[in-house]
Parts: sequence; structure tokens; C-alpha cells
Amino acid sequence: MPDSIPPKKPFADRLKDIEPFRVVEVLTRAKQLEQEGRDIVHMEAGEPDFDTASPIVEAAQAALARGDTHYTQAAGIPALREAISRHYKKDYGLDIGPERIMVTSGASGALLLIAGLLINPGDSMLMADPGYPCNRHFLRLVEGRGQLIPVGPEDRYQLTAPVAEDNWEPSTVGIMVASPANPTGEILSKQELRDLYHLCERKGGHLVVDEIYHGLTYGDDAPSILEITDQVFVMNSFSKYFGMTGWRLGWLVAPEAAVAEMEKLAQNIFISTSTMAQHAALAAFEPAARKILDGRRDEFAERRDYLLPELRRLGFDIPNVPAGALYLYAGIKKFSNDSQRFCMDMLEQHGIAITPGLDFGHHKNNEYVRFAYTTSMERLKEAVRRMDSVLVN
Amino acid sequence: MPDSIPPKKPFADRLKDIEPFRVVEVLTRAKQLEQEGRDIVHMEAGEPDFDTASPIVEAAQAALARGDTHYTQAAGIPALREAISRHYKKDYGLDIGPERIMVTSGASGALLLIAGLLINPGDSMLMADPGYPCNRHFLRLVEGRGQLIPVGPEDRYQLTAPVAEDNWEPSTVGIMVASPANPTGEILSKQELRDLYHLCERKGGHLVVDEIYHGLTYGDDAPSILEITDQVFVMNSFSKYFGMTGWRLGWLVAPEAAVAEMEKLAQNIFISTSTMAQHAALAAFEPAARKILDGRRDEFAERRDYLLPELRRLGFDIPNVPAGALYLYAGIKKFSNDSQRFCMDMLEQHGIAITPGLDFGHHKNNEYVRFAYTTSMERLKEAVRRMDSVLVN
Repeated sequence: MPDSIPPKKPFADRLKDIEPFRVVEVLTRAKQLEQEGRDIVHMEAGEPDFDTASPIVEAAQAALARGDTHYTQAAGIPALREAISRHYKKDYGLDIGPERIMVTSGASGALLLIAGLLINPGDSMLMADPGYPCNRHFLRLVEGRGQLIPVGPEDRYQLTAPVAEDNWEPSTVGIMVASPANPTGEILSKQELRDLYHLCERKGGHLVVDEIYHGLTYGDDAPSILEITDQVFVMNSFSKYFGMTGWRLGWLVAPEAAVAEMEKLAQNIFISTSTMAQHAALAAFEPAARKILDGRRDEFAERRDYLLPELRRLGFDIPNVPAGALYLYAGIKKFSNDSQRFCMDMLEQHGIAITPGLDFGHHKNNEYVRFAYTTSMERLKEAVRRMDSVLVN
Repeated sequence: MPDSIPPKKPFADRLKDIEPFRVVEVLTRAKQLEQEGRDIVHMEAGEPDFDTASPIVEAAQAALARGDTHYTQAAGIPALREAISRHYKKDYGLDIGPERIMVTSGASGALLLIAGLLINPGDSMLMADPGYPCNRHFLRLVEGRGQLIPVGPEDRYQLTAPVAEDNWEPSTVGIMVASPANPTGEILSKQELRDLYHLCERKGGHLVVDEIYHGLTYGDDAPSILEITDQVFVMNSFSKYFGMTGWRLGWLVAPEAAVAEMEKLAQNIFISTSTMAQHAALAAFEPAARKILDGRRDEFAERRDYLLPELRRLGFDIPNVPAGALYLYAGIKKFSNDSQRFCMDMLEQHGIAITPGLDFGHHKNNEYVRFAYTTSMERLKEAVRRMDSVLVN
């Protein structure tokens, strides 16, 4: 009998192309070491170290006390869509109607809706390498593909219109960029965004812009693509500037013609997003929360301003001053040609947890590591002290 | 110049196959009517009418006060995976290790992971028609397809092994069933589950069982497929028996070999699920919450026991006594051959909001409507009073 039973159908092919986060290995090992009594400086996580600001937490508690525990509309509660609309008016001077805004389960939820809407099997989107790795995996999930375009310090690690045009293939249906970017912290100028938009327009392609690190810039503000066009898909998040990672809340702005289709997808895939998170987020735009959040942004700026020159002094290669986000993407050529190994050594030998370049794409990924300044100034100084004693000696 | 610009790439083909929820139209119109002063009896929503039980809410508030606002592990906090494992021991007498359990963003999140794991383009899964419509749309999202198999009262609206075998095609990679089912409330017996499992084993296919209405049965308990095999994918949810719809929390149980792959997918697609919802759910298994939840289950039983004979008396066709869930799937042949129209008339003329069969598939979908007994006994009686005056006169 046994040989008449066919083998179980294997798992889908896409699983072979979807990579795990290497940083999880770092995190897991870091926790192990801590349990053994080691002192670890955590610079691996792409998450603000601050707990969610108290006015936001209090709004959630009030919502819970009111019994706001039921499903909401798939596109989000009207009050939050309106609050986001007002945010665009107040912070950007832009008129973005609430009907173009959808509340999503983190920017991850927005990415899934965008991939589901735009990608037929075999379609591809251009994106910078290094970049946020999940972008290409969302496309792969729906049988599309990320075209990873190598970028370097000469373009501030951003995908520019001329490079995108050179790489446009018959399968290309658009461009996906992030500003500020993960892992590099670099932003796209208004002119660069405009050029990308015009390229997409000429090619009949779609432009998707990840603006989840907006608000976390430490010099010039990052311009929004929405200043240039309404024919664009924008992802945003309450996780980074707004400090609401564990709440899983984000939003997207879409061209008006796309919203009904995306709402249909959202009904089916998500039903709705967390009700208490949505009510909490209403408080995130109020002055009491903004004051706290702006103070935290200033703290991130101080950390960047401390860490950047110190890493350079230690021999890390960081040619530009990254404009924002929470990261320094640092060349390690002087020390190693194996970023995974370098990160594990830093952790095992010196108790410093950082993320290998491998997590962010394929281009020169062994030559870089990412430092997240998501720990206190004091701990950053401790990390620098430790590196001082091993790297330059 | 304008004629040199190609038209924008159209949206993906899958959008044509993904249908909106018709019930949303009912809901929207119902709210409109209420704003105009009409009194509407709500029997359309697949959501318990009770607010989340206070011990669960209090656990969330405590977590928030502690600052539990950060990302968690993609598969869920260990404490919750362990609590779910204990739940299987206590309520089912089963040993399901926490390493086989993943916490997800509602059962919706579990469905997406399962579809992503099992479906290559062109693959199909067998499922009952009528059934939960999103199942087939999740498959379509990743370029698979639901094979909707007509089922009727003779099989208690469930897909049985002989029927599944007759419909097995070269593209079929498995079977997806729900017990208790939406919209019919019917359960699969242990023997029926065993037969489905053996069919899948013989065919090398995968078995996926939706158990989200477990705990909401009003006679015999619904058996779990996990009593029969560990080579199965089970979806469950905190939304229904546990009454946590707006929190967006569920779980899945998978074969051990599948968990690492699904965790990789979850890292990329979700990062993690709501932290406060996970901490809240810990309280859902404790005696204080269970006592409240069991009391609510008894209330649902009373409502079913009232509504079923009344609907039959009014002329609706409900041949079997549905064992669980929150629904009565009722034939309307005596009144209409257009379920959408029938529902709209019931709403407009009599202020009764119910869901058309159209929402649950294609098979005889114009001959049925779904009554959800998710409103108080008093309101159910009001609905019956109104129907009495129009349907049998």
C-alpha cells in the first residue's frame, strides 16, 4: 500500500525565493547571550526604542473602556481617514481627500494591497538594492518580481530616473522607491521624485513611494510625492515617527480610481484593521502627542549626529550624511568581506548587535552593515567604546 | 505629445475575480436609513453583538500600562502560543505543541499564510459552495483558484469525501472545509473529517480546516480535525467564541515541517500581530473570561432555538438544525427568486437587515439568505413580528 500513496504536494515555489530576516538570527542569539549574563548593545532593530507616547496609549484605553472592540469599515474609521487628511494639510499644505486614504494594518498591509492591485504574474517593479527586503517578497507573493537595481553612494543609494529608465523591461509595470530609505536613511529630492514620476507617466507605469520614515528627518524635510502628483501610491505608517510599531497600523494614499478596488481587496484580505489602534491613532496627530514625538525625533537627530562621525573615525565607510530614518548604512571593507560573519563576531565577541547587509538585497551585501540608532545615547557610547578597543587597535 | 504617452497599465486581472461583500451594501443602506430615523433590526453582521469581555479588555489595558507596545516575534509571543497549546489540552484533550501554533492577524492572516504556502499559479482547492467567500479570494490573490463544489441540505451543506473525490482535478492540491461553517452553521462529524483526511492522504493533497466557530456549538461539540491527524492546517480565531473581532487576532496550527516556512512568510508579510491583542488574548483562556464567554454562547443557543422554528413557521426553508456558528441559512423560494432584491426589500420596507446568498458563492445563491442571530432576543422577536405581518399574510 505505501508505495501507492503519492508524496504530499510540495510547498509553493515562491517559498524558495522569499528570504528570512537575517536580523532575527542576530536577535535570537543576542537574547541567548543576555540570558547567559552578557551585556548587549541593541542596534539591530528597525523600531524606535521608546514606548508608545502616553496620549496615544490613553486614547486606546478610553476606546477600550467605551467598548470600541468591534470590526470597523475595511478602509478605516472615517474619523481617522479625516485626521490623516488634515495631517497632509497641516504638515504638507496638501489637499488629500479622506476618500483617497485607506487605513491599513501597518505599511505591510498597504504593500499587500498595492501588490495585489498592480501585479499580474510575471510583472516586475524596479526598486533600489539595497532596500527594504519585504518589498520584493510582497511582489513574489502575488507572482510578480522585484527588479533589484544596484545603487551606490554616488546616487545616495537611491534609484534615479535615468537608472530606472535604463533598466525598464517589457515586464516592468512601475517603480517602487522609499524616501527616507531603509537601510540607508537617504531621501529623494523633489526634482528626483518628479523625474521618477514623469518616467512612469511616459512608460504607462505606476509609481509607489514608501514614506514611512517621514517625520524622522534631521535636516531638510523629505518632500512627499503627493506634492507633485495624485497619480501615485503612497505607503505610510504609524510605526516610525508616531512610535506605534506593536499596534500594526499604517495607511496608504491612492489615485481616486484605485480606492474602490483596493477596498474590495481589503474587505476580503483583512476585513478591517485593529479598532483600538485606529482610535489610538486619532490622538497621534494632536498637539500633546506631537510634542512628545518631535522631542523623540530630536533625540534621534542627536544620536545620528553622535554616531555618524564616530563610525567614520572607527573606519566605517559612510560617504554621505543620511537625512533621516533610524539608520546608518556603513561600509565594512576595511574590516571584513563577510557582513554576516562580521555581525556575528561583533555580537559574540563584543556584545554589539547590528544587522548584516545581506538583509537588504544582493548588491555588495557583504560589504555593509546597518546600525540602527534605536538605543540611548549612553548605550551608543558604550558600543563605540567597545569598538574603539577592537577595531582601530 | 499626448498620443505618444501609453495608457496607464491596467490593474491586475485578479481584481475582476475578487468580489466585494454584498453585505456591505446592506450595512451602508441600513446606516443611511437609521440616520433618517428608521428602526433597523441588524441580523446582517457575522460578528457577536457583545463588546469584548471585560477580563480581556482589562488585560489589554494592563499591557498598555506596562508599555507592551513594541513588535513581537512574527509567530506570536511564546506565552500566547503556550496558552493556545494548553487550550487544546484542556478543551480537546490534545497535545498540540506551541511550536506548531502561530498567532496571526485574525483567521484572515492564517488564510493568507496558508494560501501563500500551498498554492502555485493554477493550483486549486476544493471548497463548499455556499461557503465563506474570502477563501477563494485568498487563493486567487496568489494566482490559485477555489473549486466551488455545490452542496445542499442532503449533505448538511458540507463537502464530503465522495463528492470531493469526484471533483478532484489535476490542478487540485487539497480541500478547504469549515466546521461549523459560515453561512450554514453545519458541522462535520469526526467520521466525515477522517474521510476527508484520508482522501487528501491518498491524493497527496493538503487538508485545511476552518475551526473559527469552535466553541459556538449548541448541542454536540464540533470535533477538531486535530483529533485525527497532525498533517493538517487549522485556522482559528479570537473573533467569534472569544468575541474579539476588532482586535484582529487568530491562530493557525500547522504540520511541524510547515512552520518555519510560514514564519518566514509572516516575518515578511506581517512583521508581527498586534501586541496588545496578544496580551489581551492571554486572559481569554482564564476562568473569569471563559465564564462570560460560555454565558454568551448559551445566549446564542437560546436565540437559535427561538429563531429557527419561527423562520420555519414563516415559510423559510431550513431543513436541518444547524449545530453552531451564528447563522441560519434560509431558503426563500416561497417568497422570491432574487435574494439580493429580497434582502433590499426586507431592509427598505421592513427595516430588517439580512445578507443575500450571493455573498457566499454561486450555487443557488439567489434562493437563500443568511440570518445572523447577533442581536438580542428582543430584537429578534421584533424582526419576527415584522415578518409575520408581511410574509404569511
